[in-house]
Amino acid sequence: MHFHHHGYVSGDPRVQPVAGTGIDRPEELPDEMDVLIVGTGPAGMLTAAQMSQFPSVSTRIIERRPGRLEIGQADGIQARSVETFQSFGFAERIIAEAYTITEMAFWKPDPENPSNIVRAARTLDDAHGISEFPHLIVNQARVLDYFAEVMANAPTRMTPDYGYEFKDLQDTGEGEYPVKVTLVRTAGPDEGAERVVRTKYVVGSDGARSKVRSAIGCSLAGDQANHAWGVMDVLAESDFPDIRTKCAIQSGSGGSILLIPREGGHLFRMYVDLGEVPEGSHGSVRKTTIEQIIAKANEIVHPYTVEVRDVAWHSVYEVGHRLTDRFDDVVAEERGIRDPRVFITGDACHTHSAKAGQGMNVSMQDGFNLGWKLGHVLEGRSPAALLSSYSEERQVIAQNLIDFDKQWSSLMAKKPEDFENPSELEEFYVRTAEFPAGFMTEYEKSLLVAGPDHQDLATGFTIGKRFKSSPVVRLADGNPKQLGHLAQADGRWRIYVFADRAEAGADSATKEFAEWLTTAAESPLAATPEGADDDAWFDVKVVYQQDHTNIDINAVPDAFRPKVGPFKLTHLEKIFGAQEGDDIFEKRGLSRDGVVVVVRPDHYVANVLPLTATDELGAFFAPILAV
Amino acid sequence: MHFHHHGYVSGDPRVQPVAGTGIDRPEELPDEMDVLIVGTGPAGMLTAAQMSQFPSVSTRIIERRPGRLEIGQADGIQARSVETFQSFGFAERIIAEAYTITEMAFWKPDPENPSNIVRAARTLDDAHGISEFPHLIVNQARVLDYFAEVMANAPTRMTPDYGYEFKDLQDTGEGEYPVKVTLVRTAGPDEGAERVVRTKYVVGSDGARSKVRSAIGCSLAGDQANHAWGVMDVLAESDFPDIRTKCAIQSGSGGSILLIPREGGHLFRMYVDLGEVPEGSHGSVRKTTIEQIIAKANEIVHPYTVEVRDVAWHSVYEVGHRLTDRFDDVVAEERGIRDPRVFITGDACHTHSAKAGQGMNVSMQDGFNLGWKLGHVLEGRSPAALLSSYSEERQVIAQNLIDFDKQWSSLMAKKPEDFENPSELEEFYVRTAEFPAGFMTEYEKSLLVAGPDHQDLATGFTIGKRFKSSPVVRLADGNPKQLGHLAQADGRWRIYVFADRAEAGADSATKEFAEWLTTAAESPLAATPEGADDDAWFDVKVVYQQDHTNIDINAVPDAFRPKVGPFKLTHLEKIFGAQEGDDIFEKRGLSRDGVVVVVRPDHYVANVLPLTATDELGAFFAPILAV
Ligand SMILES: Cc1cc2nc3c(=O)[nH]c(=O)nc-3n(C[C@H](O)[C@H](O)[C@H](O)COP(=O)(O)OP(=O)(O)OC[C@H]3O[C@@H](n4cnc5c(N)ncnc54)[C@H](O)[C@@H]3O)c2cc1C
Ligand SMILES: Cc1cc2nc3c(=O)[nH]c(=O)nc-3n(C[C@H](O)[C@H](O)[C@H](O)COP(=O)(O)OP(=O)(O)OC[C@H]3O[C@@H](n4cnc5c(N)ncnc54)[C@H](O)[C@@H]3O)c2cc1C
Repeated sequence: MHFHHHGYVSGDPRVQPVAGTGIDRPEELPDEMDVLIVGTGPAGMLTAAQMSQFPSVSTRIIERRPGRLEIGQADGIQARSVETFQSFGFAERIIAEAYTITEMAFWKPDPENPSNIVRAARTLDDAHGISEFPHLIVNQARVLDYFAEVMANAPTRMTPDYGYEFKDLQDTGEGEYPVKVTLVRTAGPDEGAERVVRTKYVVGSDGARSKVRSAIGCSLAGDQANHAWGVMDVLAESDFPDIRTKCAIQSGSGGSILLIPREGGHLFRMYVDLGEVPEGSHGSVRKTTIEQIIAKANEIVHPYTVEVRDVAWHSVYEVGHRLTDRFDDVVAEERGIRDPRVFITGDACHTHSAKAGQGMNVSMQDGFNLGWKLGHVLEGRSPAALLSSYSEERQVIAQNLIDFDKQWSSLMAKKPEDFENPSELEEFYVRTAEFPAGFMTEYEKSLLVAGPDHQDLATGFTIGKRFKSSPVVRLADGNPKQLGHLAQADGRWRIYVFADRAEAGADSATKEFAEWLTTAAESPLAATPEGADDDAWFDVKVVYQQDHTNIDINAVPDAFRPKVGPFKLTHLEKIFGAQEGDDIFEKRGLSRDGVVVVVRPDHYVANVLPLTATDELGAFFAPILAV
Repeated sequence: MHFHHHGYVSGDPRVQPVAGTGIDRPEELPDEMDVLIVGTGPAGMLTAAQMSQFPSVSTRIIERRPGRLEIGQADGIQARSVETFQSFGFAERIIAEAYTITEMAFWKPDPENPSNIVRAARTLDDAHGISEFPHLIVNQARVLDYFAEVMANAPTRMTPDYGYEFKDLQDTGEGEYPVKVTLVRTAGPDEGAERVVRTKYVVGSDGARSKVRSAIGCSLAGDQANHAWGVMDVLAESDFPDIRTKCAIQSGSGGSILLIPREGGHLFRMYVDLGEVPEGSHGSVRKTTIEQIIAKANEIVHPYTVEVRDVAWHSVYEVGHRLTDRFDDVVAEERGIRDPRVFITGDACHTHSAKAGQGMNVSMQDGFNLGWKLGHVLEGRSPAALLSSYSEERQVIAQNLIDFDKQWSSLMAKKPEDFENPSELEEFYVRTAEFPAGFMTEYEKSLLVAGPDHQDLATGFTIGKRFKSSPVVRLADGNPKQLGHLAQADGRWRIYVFADRAEAGADSATKEFAEWLTTAAESPLAATPEGADDDAWFDVKVVYQQDHTNIDINAVPDAFRPKVGPFKLTHLEKIFGAQEGDDIFEKRGLSRDGVVVVVRPDHYVANVLPLTATDELGAFFAPILAV
């Protein structure tokens, strides 16, 4: 954590100094704002938490409900989400209260007595060590709480505006706040009253029945039918041996359950498969009672029993794989001609089977992709053209996910006798683990992602994929650190300079590159506003090949020792040495001649370049910074 | 974290359900209370945080200051303290904001040019891997904040009563609340007003000038003179290469500095040695200005410079090694005849040189030792005789610490030319690391600590020393866990059963022991109140020698599967298997015939017994539970 550089902080350093729109922030929803986010689900809250880091931007997030979410909905948090939480500063806390999935068990009918189930397999959840972060299960409500805390502690002191329903919007194309949004009060003394506000941008994070989506003429397409699950979060007694292990259970009768142990040591969730139902049907499935769900669960787990003592939440959750063809308000004919004003994120633009546990996770990544772009455009760091990349990047990801999800769901639904080989299910699970863990996202070449020209200089940092952390040792204090974990969700670009063989300070490509960074007019750092901290827009770090005891801190170029805060203090925590026995150069396939890795504020690798490619780096950033 | 067993918890699970004295807790200091703690320093706040876990006990903590501590005072947090924080639930958070000491550097006069200093050595702070917890530096104020949060989230919803100064006390020996305490209001509209309250027990945590100490006729004895340090917490620019590493710096002129980098990346503390001063002197040292401290620091670090840009705090901190001969109100002649009513903890009974960074740490361990004893006595779990053990146990520890501290301080003060060998200082530092890390405490045989009769059954769990954690795997969910970290500061005794070779459920010594635990009248568990959770007073855990996939959860004896909460749910998280490759039985020298390890609520090993020694275990607990 970086603090005290604006003067001594006596209290919780997580509470940032109030600034910009956070000073005198109106408690009530004002008539005008830069960004209006609709819906406080995971997609909306992450976007809001990210926007809250841009003090000059006024962002409001409205929610139809009168207050915070209390219960239910999604609970699976993949490693990529935990990694994201880490950058928002609450990973360690949510890990401490969540259930951690270490293993998954597969139960099948006993071949000798198919009316009983037996454990057929047990697999490690992350057998390949894909991530240093765990796979968690925790109530969606807590995820939202943590984002709310991030917002409240941000310079902008944001809080959600509960009790407002989005009704419609109209892009007037006029004035500073061109989008006219009609809201309805759903709580408080003026319940039912209409209210019109004006904004520059709208983010529709209003879930599967999104009205923002309709307002921009999009619709979800995909499955004809929904799949229905009887979902229950219960406290129960059970002799089922794996009651606190994530399980896929298939009974001889064809029934199936996904068992998800929950936080706290007792609660668990069961998804009991209720089969396909036509969309919009008002059939019998909807009327499935909790007693029926419990009875069905008991049938499936025979010879074991589940004796429910308390029902925390239950629902018949119906969902199909569906997707819109665009995630913003720019129709195909207008693409490239005008920039978007309205975006949809999360369930508003894609829905998924509950089984792969993707909904909440991919929704948050939508928000992470969009948030910083809005911030940069509104702060005048970048042109509005940046905003088109949101739909372009995320629509493909959602499609890939649905493809994967379908495969997984149909495998899960297969009758045991239909499998080609008896362990097809668990083999698929292990083989494709990078996907559900959230690390398969790979953005294509674009304004924000370079081509693979120099990929061979850093084979472990795939351009377009998220920057995978690796340990290094911090020079200033000899502390071992995960390099990636130092990248906070503060909206900054990162430039990682992996030095060449030379010693710090010796004449070398590294030194020349550093010199260029701080002095050249073409350097992206030249865009940093006058008077701001040297690292306000670009967080530049250097990793030397030497171990930290062999680097002379006073010889390190100034580019890696920026001045920060009103006292113009030198920030000494940007210089690293390789970790003995776990060398990042080897682990990530980094060129010993040095390499520059450019990483976006949402953690994705944007570019990989040799130290000498300053022209190329300048050219990469020129259109991104051209305002 | 264990929750949901009283029903679904939607919000932060760290906020425990309100109970007992927390319901309708008077906001204003009431006239009567069970325990009055004087002073909100580390000693008092830890005691209060511990007491806050006993819902039936009314505890108040008063403080002379009008509000929370803002700045200054101690900052060194040894690993044992972080371990303690872990049990209070905030280790991960304070680690995230603190400075972590990985290395310590030693700077000495350059032999070739003694007017310059050079780095003579660099040592790992915990070269022997003494603890899995780090050694931290963080503002004392933040430690107090975290304890305040623990109290506020406890069932008792405690908050400190600021603005009350302790003046005097009198043990009337009469009534339910025999101790009459006179306070003076130091803040608010009635400032200066006297107030008399009555209490059962007083804990004087009121620092080095303790009035509670005087009130019980104790005084600090020890050094004739104080050692004075010019202390400053500053933001500065410096070319001293180790400005963010803990350093002991000795200059050619004989000046010396202890440099302590602080949290946040910029702030650091310097202790500039100002030499010995007669106690109570009002001499020139006191008048040392910040400019003089800065000038002296610059002299010492020559050829480097320290250019101070902002002073967060500075002080001339004078302290000597001093100690009282008892830590409670029972004079030698009365010992064994009556039980104590008034205790003193922390700086009130022992003071230390700043150099070894012990003050705050040992003070907190005083509180940890005393808190649960008060809770158990007041809740009627244990006889008042328990309370005498506080002074008996802690006075020795303080003496040992002072002995160590003196050695260390005089070494630090030695002129380079007086050392027998040039690396004497750093060798001493490394050799004695267990001491400053806080793990050398070893309580003697007493009512609460058994003799070493069966120590050979568990050579890694020394009787009288704190239970050193080791990894195990939890059966229910396959999660690798640090066994010791599951022991929360909830005031419960722990009984760890390390099973014999037999499988769970097979006829064995383990099974017989488990049977005895839950059924015998002599079992300590028999004391658990009717209607309480099975594990309300004793947290019993079992570790099998088998790996977790080879333990049948349904065959595990009931002693290890207690029922908890209103729904009488089975608590399944008390059963463990050995971790492959890191077997606790090998690591801690545990008998393969099984062994029982009894651990006190403050983490200290109280007894080690064979599985068959049920009589002995019953006899050990009989006097502790005899009320
Ligand atoms: C009842 C329910 C049960 C679910 N159960 C599961 C499950 O068991 N497993 C699983 O994996 N996933 C489940 N999901 C889906 C999962 O919660 C989503 O995939 C995930 O929350 C997507 O995040 P989001 O932010 O896009 O949308 P959501 O979390 O749906 O958030 C949308 C938010 O917008 C608000 N909103 C909607 N319309 C308006 C409006 N017009 N004006 C203002 N606010 C509005 C909603 O109240 C809501 O807070 C469930 C969803 C729901 C609604
Ligand atoms: C000004 C100062 C500077 C220090 N600097 C350092 C340092 O640089 N390095 C270091 O290692 N240690 C330092 N210490 C010592 C270190 O803070 C203590 O060792 C540690 O805090 C001991 O904890 P404690 O709880 O026993 O006492 P303290 O932290 O001293 O807490 C005692 C509390 O009791 C309150 N109090 C006192 N008298 C009364 C009364 N009559 N009624 C009500 N409340 C009362 C005080 O206001 C205080 O909050 C310093 C202490 C002080 C006071």
